[in-house]
Amino acid sequence: MSSRQYDVLGLGNAIVDVIARADDDFLAKENLNKGSMMLIDEPRAESLYASMGQASVFSGGSAANTIVGLASFGSKAAFIGKVRADETGHAFAHDIRAMGIHFPTSAAQDGPSTARCLVLVTPDGERTMNTYLGACQKLGPDDVDEATVQASAITYLEGYLWDPPAAKEAFVKAAAIAHAAGRQVALTLSDPFCVDRYRDEFLGLIRKKTVDIVFANQHELRSLYQTADFDTALAALRDEGVLGIVTRSEHGSMVVTREETHAVPAFPIEKLVDTTGAGDLFAAGFLAGLTRDADLVTCARMGALAASEVIQHYGARPEANLRDLAQQNGLL
Amino acid sequence: MSSRQYDVLGLGNAIVDVIARADDDFLAKENLNKGSMMLIDEPRAESLYASMGQASVFSGGSAANTIVGLASFGSKAAFIGKVRADETGHAFAHDIRAMGIHFPTSAAQDGPSTARCLVLVTPDGERTMNTYLGACQKLGPDDVDEATVQASAITYLEGYLWDPPAAKEAFVKAAAIAHAAGRQVALTLSDPFCVDRYRDEFLGLIRKKTVDIVFANQHELRSLYQTADFDTALAALRDEGVLGIVTRSEHGSMVVTREETHAVPAFPIEKLVDTTGAGDLFAAGFLAGLTRDADLVTCARMGALAASEVIQHYGARPEANLRDLAQQNGLL
Repeated sequence: MSSRQYDVLGLGNAIVDVIARADDDFLAKENLNKGSMMLIDEPRAESLYASMGQASVFSGGSAANTIVGLASFGSKAAFIGKVRADETGHAFAHDIRAMGIHFPTSAAQDGPSTARCLVLVTPDGERTMNTYLGACQKLGPDDVDEATVQASAITYLEGYLWDPPAAKEAFVKAAAIAHAAGRQVALTLSDPFCVDRYRDEFLGLIRKKTVDIVFANQHELRSLYQTADFDTALAALRDEGVLGIVTRSEHGSMVVTREETHAVPAFPIEKLVDTTGAGDLFAAGFLAGLTRDADLVTCARMGALAASEVIQHYGARPEANLRDLAQQNGLL
Repeated sequence: MSSRQYDVLGLGNAIVDVIARADDDFLAKENLNKGSMMLIDEPRAESLYASMGQASVFSGGSAANTIVGLASFGSKAAFIGKVRADETGHAFAHDIRAMGIHFPTSAAQDGPSTARCLVLVTPDGERTMNTYLGACQKLGPDDVDEATVQASAITYLEGYLWDPPAAKEAFVKAAAIAHAAGRQVALTLSDPFCVDRYRDEFLGLIRKKTVDIVFANQHELRSLYQTADFDTALAALRDEGVLGIVTRSEHGSMVVTREETHAVPAFPIEKLVDTTGAGDLFAAGFLAGLTRDADLVTCARMGALAASEVIQHYGARPEANLRDLAQQNGLL
């Protein structure tokens, strides 16, 4: 096995979030499905942006948020994802590198612009996402830096990578390199509609042992097993023989393996501002614990802590230093 | 007098704020003067950005923030300022227009990029600003839309316009049009170092009656009259015969005319997050009151309310609807 340089490598869509407040009437008028992620093309991105209110811009992307969260916990982290060499892509790369994260992917010099996710946050703190994938469509197997995968204890892959066609090949290649190097592979299911689009493929990844660790929220898990009953879905996941982590918003999380089942509560919060990044940061905390060889309950508590931080402000990247926060809460 | 279409027209530098947290050691290492605004060139902007932590991007600009605040109060507002037709400029224009603000200035098609202010926010909530003026240097008298000035009850000008050479001419032209149309002209002194750079010119504007209303904070006022004693400086301002409004952070504000002096307390806050925009939003609230013919104390309370909103989150534009907030506080 090559020497371990990184605790976690993330592979995901490199996206900048454009966040505006909106009310439910706006979502209805624009035909947006509250709480979900919808893929949009560039003309739609422009027309939706034109009708949105004033916006703030934050780097985002599901796996990228997780990797930044890991760096904030003091973990050694790397990220692979595709931007274009434009102003937005420059900002994304700056923010990743500012956290000390290894980011070996070259920016596309032409083609579609850096991906943007237009995020509408309603007064209840729920976010509704509209993603123009742009340059993410250029991520392919050539971007999978073999040495980085081999040197990472866990390679973390987002389900959203199934949307841009060539990214799927990058995903499969990265998983194969990781396993050949004796490393672990984690998958997040990303979104219930993403699961709808690729259910059989995701189940295939789990059953062929392409992935060892699966993150999902309750909606994604029910979608995966096509059942309205959470316990049925959880039992099905347990039977897969993976390490499964299922988040349930304010009801905390469940961690399952064939042998163990743990229910772990959420961290209390003062005020819910914006749920963007909750699942991403949960995964960050969990993996920060796992790569420090913490027990599964501590991992889930670290996940809950990181999620509680990110939902109390706008944007999907932590504002606090998560290592300090974990120490203050007796988790490190 | 032409009919009044706008309560306030703002003329200012069109800037996008790139906000990152930083500690005092970072400010020392980068030779930054805490709490002030420093002008930087593009290479310095790039090197400082490269050394900054992950950042969020918000539209900014002093007068632009004030105008957005006015729109949030339900006032009719217009803005003149120069961006370039790049991604950053597109975002700035979107955010202004999303608030229903009339924005007649054309974007520069070439030349320097849209202005950026690199804002470092320290744990005490103080902000330190580093401005690359970029396309603002292209604002000139031709950008002063005569009809918009004539149709605005108050034309509000930022002292920072003295930095890009041609903008000064735009400032003087706008003031002349406003007065010829029987309108009022307001000036904000912007920054103590800005006052240092242009003290005689600012005093000239006041004494030649180019401006009728002057906004300053205590540091700017002391710089204007080159005295360490606040009361001496305030007396000097009162003697100018303008309407003078001086903000003093948590100690509230003073409103002076030759005949009247009012001390008005600040609004209580829960947590200071980022002082960026405090003065800009104070001016917004004050002018929102003034253009509704409110008494001077109510104007200052509206200013204090708007300032209290903006310092409790990152970014210099209000997140709340200020009209609703003013109604909840019995000010409208």
